[in-house]
Amino acid sequence: MSNSTDELFKNVISHCKEYGFVFQSSEIYDGLSAVYDYGQNGSELKNNIKTYWWKAMVQMHDNIVGIDSAIFMHPTIWKASGHVDGFSDPMIDNKDSNKRYRADQLLEDRIAKLDEEGKTSEAEELQIEMDNALKAEDLPRLRELIIEQNIKCPLSGTANWTDVRQFNLMFSTQMGAVADDADVVYLRPETAQGIFVNYLNVQKSGRMKIPFGIAQIGKAFRNEVIARQFIIRMREFEQMEMQYFVRPGTQKEWFEKWKAARLKWHLALGTDAAKYRYHEHTKLAHYADAAYDIEFDFPFGFKEVEGIHSRTDFDLSQHEKFSRKKMQYFDPELGEDGKPYGNYIPYVIETSIGLDRMFLLTMINAYEEEDLSTEERQDSRTVLRLHPCLAPVKAAIFPLTKKDGLPEKAREIMDKLKLDFNIQYEEKDAIGKRYRRQDAIGTPFCITVDHQTLEDNTVTIRHRDTMAQERVAADDLEKIIGGLVSWKNLLG
Amino acid sequence: MSNSTDELFKNVISHCKEYGFVFQSSEIYDGLSAVYDYGQNGSELKNNIKTYWWKAMVQMHDNIVGIDSAIFMHPTIWKASGHVDGFSDPMIDNKDSNKRYRADQLLEDRIAKLDEEGKTSEAEELQIEMDNALKAEDLPRLRELIIEQNIKCPLSGTANWTDVRQFNLMFSTQMGAVADDADVVYLRPETAQGIFVNYLNVQKSGRMKIPFGIAQIGKAFRNEVIARQFIIRMREFEQMEMQYFVRPGTQKEWFEKWKAARLKWHLALGTDAAKYRYHEHTKLAHYADAAYDIEFDFPFGFKEVEGIHSRTDFDLSQHEKFSRKKMQYFDPELGEDGKPYGNYIPYVIETSIGLDRMFLLTMINAYEEEDLSTEERQDSRTVLRLHPCLAPVKAAIFPLTKKDGLPEKAREIMDKLKLDFNIQYEEKDAIGKRYRRQDAIGTPFCITVDHQTLEDNTVTIRHRDTMAQERVAADDLEKIIGGLVSWKNLLG
Repeated sequence: MSNSTDELFKNVISHCKEYGFVFQSSEIYDGLSAVYDYGQNGSELKNNIKTYWWKAMVQMHDNIVGIDSAIFMHPTIWKASGHVDGFSDPMIDNKDSNKRYRADQLLEDRIAKLDEEGKTSEAEELQIEMDNALKAEDLPRLRELIIEQNIKCPLSGTANWTDVRQFNLMFSTQMGAVADDADVVYLRPETAQGIFVNYLNVQKSGRMKIPFGIAQIGKAFRNEVIARQFIIRMREFEQMEMQYFVRPGTQKEWFEKWKAARLKWHLALGTDAAKYRYHEHTKLAHYADAAYDIEFDFPFGFKEVEGIHSRTDFDLSQHEKFSRKKMQYFDPELGEDGKPYGNYIPYVIETSIGLDRMFLLTMINAYEEEDLSTEERQDSRTVLRLHPCLAPVKAAIFPLTKKDGLPEKAREIMDKLKLDFNIQYEEKDAIGKRYRRQDAIGTPFCITVDHQTLEDNTVTIRHRDTMAQERVAADDLEKIIGGLVSWKNLLG
Repeated sequence: MSNSTDELFKNVISHCKEYGFVFQSSEIYDGLSAVYDYGQNGSELKNNIKTYWWKAMVQMHDNIVGIDSAIFMHPTIWKASGHVDGFSDPMIDNKDSNKRYRADQLLEDRIAKLDEEGKTSEAEELQIEMDNALKAEDLPRLRELIIEQNIKCPLSGTANWTDVRQFNLMFSTQMGAVADDADVVYLRPETAQGIFVNYLNVQKSGRMKIPFGIAQIGKAFRNEVIARQFIIRMREFEQMEMQYFVRPGTQKEWFEKWKAARLKWHLALGTDAAKYRYHEHTKLAHYADAAYDIEFDFPFGFKEVEGIHSRTDFDLSQHEKFSRKKMQYFDPELGEDGKPYGNYIPYVIETSIGLDRMFLLTMINAYEEEDLSTEERQDSRTVLRLHPCLAPVKAAIFPLTKKDGLPEKAREIMDKLKLDFNIQYEEKDAIGKRYRRQDAIGTPFCITVDHQTLEDNTVTIRHRDTMAQERVAADDLEKIIGGLVSWKNLLG
């Protein structure tokens, strides 16, 4: 991270706090690691991102519907999905500092260091050894490598290591009150399984025909060992996932369609296409036959925002096996064509986007420290160039002064507009200062009510991006604002 | 519960499942007790209820803002709030059946039985004894009373009881990866504390002046011992809470205002006012100086849907004490008036509504089995008379037949409307059958495209409630639908 991008990232984080977008969770209790709260502007922005996704995925597709499944699910679901056995990191503790590390990360750091020192063949050798140990899940071998390399704990400076153990990333809790039946349940580590176990309920009650999709927005939880980079990797986070059920054999075609459609969704917000790229997974997860990430150019480098995964029939087949309930879809069209079978377990294309990452992306992309200096004087402003549909506040209304009936008139105009839009009223400080505060939260319009308004019912409307001002009839405000913030602009 | 109301409730529950409103969670794994998933129509209805609340509380009040705080919070918060020590039920296990009961509930059942048998003085005496034991938190005495009364486990038929123990209703989990520092954290049992610990962050970054409110919608979790009555008492549920911060001494006035405003919100949906009533709390919680419930006449009797609580300065004072951070608000107006102090801990009025209960209320209230029989023939329909703003689908579009270009024309009309509304397309079965299916999910409009449409671009629009049909220009549909489903109808 260069100095200037490092600076940018820091400034965005402090802007998030100063203007009510994101607060450290439980801040007055010195915070809870890797957990964040969304403030008054953050919650509106986040809701608007959700709405955009939901409208684009559910409202615009008559073969995609939404659900809202619970965070708590039957524990066997996570056996079937592979999370109980496989969703873990190899951890090692230093006995002197009591600090815990990911064993593979310690070795990765060493490999990087060997590379730096020009010891490339040693580095390569260690890489192969580690990869083999990880593949074979040979935990004692991982420990041996750490000892052989004489890797020390940065805190204690010693190599007094425990065994390597698998550390599951799922949070667990005890549910139920019956003495001998207090079940261990998990907080879901992904929302997708809530869709899989409900897919036949939705298909039958909604009379869905393949191909069809089920979408969901909701919280997920992972007990991350190393949680960092602000809201990029959190222990409690939110996902927007869509599972698209297709005929076996057609998954490649649908995978390509969704890969393109999802990038289009991002770019519709006006983001520079050069900031996005696809990243193909070369090591595929056990359930996938193809996977691409959509990556964004964050200040700390390109990073995944969304994944498009061809999950095959893995999840549904596993649930058929573990629940002993048929998970097959009856395809009337295949039957009609005289094809050999009409029943099958569908293949699944998943699109999965991290809402919090999308939020951070949006903030970083919108944030600008704009130099407004002229020959006469130095000036600048911080402006959030959010897409108007995403802006937390659509318009702010200012009476020029606090007297002469201007506040009353301003409130009268606001009371009409607030039926349709999130409006803010401000009467304190000079107009210029009020403009700056609205620029900082991305409000597209500022409306000033002055003495002329009392005479001819016109107001001054000031545009965030251009700072241009014009005089318009107060009665036209609903149309002017509505035109710019309409979802049609994004969906059309 | 009378037979007919019992029947109604059962029918609503099965309707919820059959039409994709609510599914038992993890159903293919035989379910998870007291946890439910919202299906394709349920999630839309739930989202619409959320939107109505958010618009009415946040958008319509320029001194109320929203936040979205995390489910995970610092564990000391629940010490300060009283939940770690006080949020528990007295439980007793039968050693033979291994079944666990709430000790007070066993005694309550006995008191009811004594009353039934006409032994009123015995019943009264036991009631007093139990109340005293509960008040004194005298758990051995509770057990004695159970033994004295010779209360037996219905399952084992024995009185072989364990001690009575306090059973905390909070779910807990282990967070963190550092060996000696895996903290116990709780899943929040209410969303309110997320508002309290953030109140100064919001007030300062949002420049809020008292009185002001902070609203939040989110999940909460309680390990209910006896979870029952469908989605009335769940282990994972959703709350919509607003905390209103006021000057000490003015809480009574604001309490009355919010009590009235909240009932008005319910009644704006068109519900019969006779189905609602206020219930005053006579036993107040430790933090409250006044509390009312808004109750709804469910098939199983009047039950709380929303609570309005005057929480005093209890929570903020506790957080000041436990966090050692100042929680005082600086009131510039008090200072200006030359009053003796400008700093104080605000008093708080809370409005707290159970989203899932509101959902169930809405379903029950909307559900009607309507007799449509004429002299010629028997007929009936099941119709959900949902407020159009809340309806999951706003309009359904039907081509009269599957040929002659009617499906294409119908889709052309849909593609325009879906930019604004959630639209469904159906081409299977006779029109009458398609009407019935839309009635059952509460769709306000059905639009039929026929051969005349191809000639003059008019369609038949059929109204859910009256079943009246009229011929209108396709180009007017946006205005007709928009007029009925506009949020202005509820907020104005």
